[in-house]
Amino acid sequence: MQTQFLLTQNDVPTQWYNVQADLPAPLPPVLHPVTLQPVGPQDLAPLFPMELILQEVSQERYIDIAQPVLDVLKLWRPTPLFRAARLEKELGTPARIFYKYEGTSPTGSHKPNTAVAQAFYNKAQGVAKLTTETGAGQWGSALAMACNFFGIECKVYMVKVSYQQKPYRRSVMRMFGANVTPSPSEETEAGRAILAADPDSRGSLGIAISEAVEVALKNEDTKYSLGSVLNHVLMHQTVIGEEAIKQLDMAGVQEPDVVIGCVGGGSNFGGLMLPFMRANLRDGAKTRFVAVEPMACPSMTLGVYAFDYGDTAKMAPVVKMDTLGHDFVPPGIHAGGLRYHGVSPLLAALHHHKLIEAVAYHQVPVFDAAALFTRTEGIIPAPEAAHAVRAAIDEALDAKEKGEERTILFNLSGHGLLDLGAYDAYLAGQLENYAYPEEKVREALTRLPQVSL
Amino acid sequence: MQTQFLLTQNDVPTQWYNVQADLPAPLPPVLHPVTLQPVGPQDLAPLFPMELILQEVSQERYIDIAQPVLDVLKLWRPTPLFRAARLEKELGTPARIFYKYEGTSPTGSHKPNTAVAQAFYNKAQGVAKLTTETGAGQWGSALAMACNFFGIECKVYMVKVSYQQKPYRRSVMRMFGANVTPSPSEETEAGRAILAADPDSRGSLGIAISEAVEVALKNEDTKYSLGSVLNHVLMHQTVIGEEAIKQLDMAGVQEPDVVIGCVGGGSNFGGLMLPFMRANLRDGAKTRFVAVEPMACPSMTLGVYAFDYGDTAKMAPVVKMDTLGHDFVPPGIHAGGLRYHGVSPLLAALHHHKLIEAVAYHQVPVFDAAALFTRTEGIIPAPEAAHAVRAAIDEALDAKEKGEERTILFNLSGHGLLDLGAYDAYLAGQLENYAYPEEKVREALTRLPQVSL
Repeated sequence: MQTQFLLTQNDVPTQWYNVQADLPAPLPPVLHPVTLQPVGPQDLAPLFPMELILQEVSQERYIDIAQPVLDVLKLWRPTPLFRAARLEKELGTPARIFYKYEGTSPTGSHKPNTAVAQAFYNKAQGVAKLTTETGAGQWGSALAMACNFFGIECKVYMVKVSYQQKPYRRSVMRMFGANVTPSPSEETEAGRAILAADPDSRGSLGIAISEAVEVALKNEDTKYSLGSVLNHVLMHQTVIGEEAIKQLDMAGVQEPDVVIGCVGGGSNFGGLMLPFMRANLRDGAKTRFVAVEPMACPSMTLGVYAFDYGDTAKMAPVVKMDTLGHDFVPPGIHAGGLRYHGVSPLLAALHHHKLIEAVAYHQVPVFDAAALFTRTEGIIPAPEAAHAVRAAIDEALDAKEKGEERTILFNLSGHGLLDLGAYDAYLAGQLENYAYPEEKVREALTRLPQVSL
Repeated sequence: MQTQFLLTQNDVPTQWYNVQADLPAPLPPVLHPVTLQPVGPQDLAPLFPMELILQEVSQERYIDIAQPVLDVLKLWRPTPLFRAARLEKELGTPARIFYKYEGTSPTGSHKPNTAVAQAFYNKAQGVAKLTTETGAGQWGSALAMACNFFGIECKVYMVKVSYQQKPYRRSVMRMFGANVTPSPSEETEAGRAILAADPDSRGSLGIAISEAVEVALKNEDTKYSLGSVLNHVLMHQTVIGEEAIKQLDMAGVQEPDVVIGCVGGGSNFGGLMLPFMRANLRDGAKTRFVAVEPMACPSMTLGVYAFDYGDTAKMAPVVKMDTLGHDFVPPGIHAGGLRYHGVSPLLAALHHHKLIEAVAYHQVPVFDAAALFTRTEGIIPAPEAAHAVRAAIDEALDAKEKGEERTILFNLSGHGLLDLGAYDAYLAGQLENYAYPEEKVREALTRLPQVSL
């Protein structure tokens, strides 16, 4: 049985797919964090280069990928698509399980797909330095690599709990010449305010975003780069889904029954899923889409669909999304990339229109799934990606119970070779299932901005 | 310019190439460690399953790869071949630099190519448990994965200095269910003897081999597995070179000018190089072959071609090879996989016949090359593979000086994502160039076995 579906370098997509062209309704506006009024492109210019802002609001269905971006993507793209034949056999399921594997990129995840594009458009506009936040470090290492390729300085605020849990991801960033600081830090007003209130703060993505945004706003030659959430970021990731469509076709699959991905901000799930969603929106396909999140940070399953700040210190734009409240700080789970209080407005809108389902899992069953996957397929998943593995296994078991030949596709967005401290804790039986944070969320939701739109 | 050359799953070789069929002279015999007399297949049976012993001595040019082995290899093979266009540009060289990348395997190196075959043939003979040694952990994690796939227990003695330097490789082995012990250990007579003489011993591959061999010899249901050195191991690795030949052909290259690989025991270099050597031996091709080793453990550049024990405690068979003496303990360089006192008898014979050149480098220039490679090609090399990178860069610079359009191929045998402690030390300026160990070697060579053949 063929288990690996490989494309040639010529199959790397030359255009991004922009789902905004096909949405059932336009996205709600982006609001200014102080005035809470809709912003125009110029209002975002202190943070982003104009080309990315135009991509953010574009209604064009396809946007060409610039050649210098393609040249770098081809250092590792196309990525392989696998059939998980050994996992299927172990589960005794009639389901067919496919996974797209983004861990073959140099930094081990899907994140470079957008990092390269963002670094290129910033460089093209003469930006000297990019700031960003990172959780587990997948995004920070991707942006560090991309900035290195285009000759831009890179400054990363890394959530402190991850800075401590994943020392090697810092090393990767430093190998690419980036400057890495644990967040909250003393370097910014936002960081100092958090530390004044809680000197032991282990940080969150919301806090680290505040620090990175503050530095970009205060420095003329510096802009800010976000590894997920925004429309243009998800669009840059659609190369994943476009390749997967061709690869599933090689496997004789025209329309998968279900497409699965883990969701923090939503970029790997969006990247795989949006090109398949296109067939649902335009051609009447009936694929189901499942977003998987941690019980410790359940923005789509427990949060509300509302306008909220993108960061904790209320400096980032306000967007309508599924949110747990901008000052909600999730427990320090090992899937650091999923510790974001909100989710991409695109995914939130699709969720609101009932075009996406969402499920949440506790940490231990997620690692159980990762361990089973490792022993059957050989690849140790990143803790984030392990959430998708868990959901794919449960879909396959459900298909078994119902005797259905379901076709399942999920995104194995990264490997866990730099997350092995988490697996050591798992093997030692020291992982916790953090309590479902319902009360903390209810409290944080009392502080949503009052928007009259 | 095309920079990535990808094959399909159908291009994975179905036969191994056995260079013994084409050697200028037969290999010298293998000797019993006690009698120092030539051994027959039965003498090796306590250590290895008969099928591997027969492969070890076979004179057949091609040997079929068993289907269950191929099925597992196809979890990650074929591996990509890249043209290092960005590195070439940075060097300003007219040379074309290609590299075969084995880091896309689940454990991140070429080692699973033989681990899978060895686990399969042991399982087929009913072996319950395999013991082995590992340096940096690339081999141990590969065998752990392979044993997991075929349902065999796996016990790994990991050289203590690497056990401390690379904690995450232990975690990988444990994820695949292996038992890992730092060597020298109190578990074996060999280990206890070393510790009695030097309680602070940081270990060596030679010592760890003694421990693993001892356990295999003392237990009926247990055999021993070696990750390099032996003929059948290098043969299992020839899938690398066979794929590379097809991929270079896609790039319009029929005969590279030089093929380069790092050498500890010699398996990754042999795997890439032997199928190209076939063209030299049979078809009059003129490719040069360069083995690269660390100055700290220079078996081919400083050692002698002589019969010596494969391990420190004199329990492993005696073979004719380039050796530094079986009790030579190299300094604790970060390229733990290259800390072996000898080298594959196959490579030693080819070296003796002047069909292979050898060069040695100090640690710091090797890491300098790795850092340059990281910033141009995006991949952080394993410290072992970085030796090949250094030599490839120097070939390209030599070609530049001479104005030659040289075609260079090297093996990037693994990534360094689990070796980042070494890179942290490098970035902090804390790496040492260990002294060239000439006196220690001269002394160790006084203890070679006295063989009258």
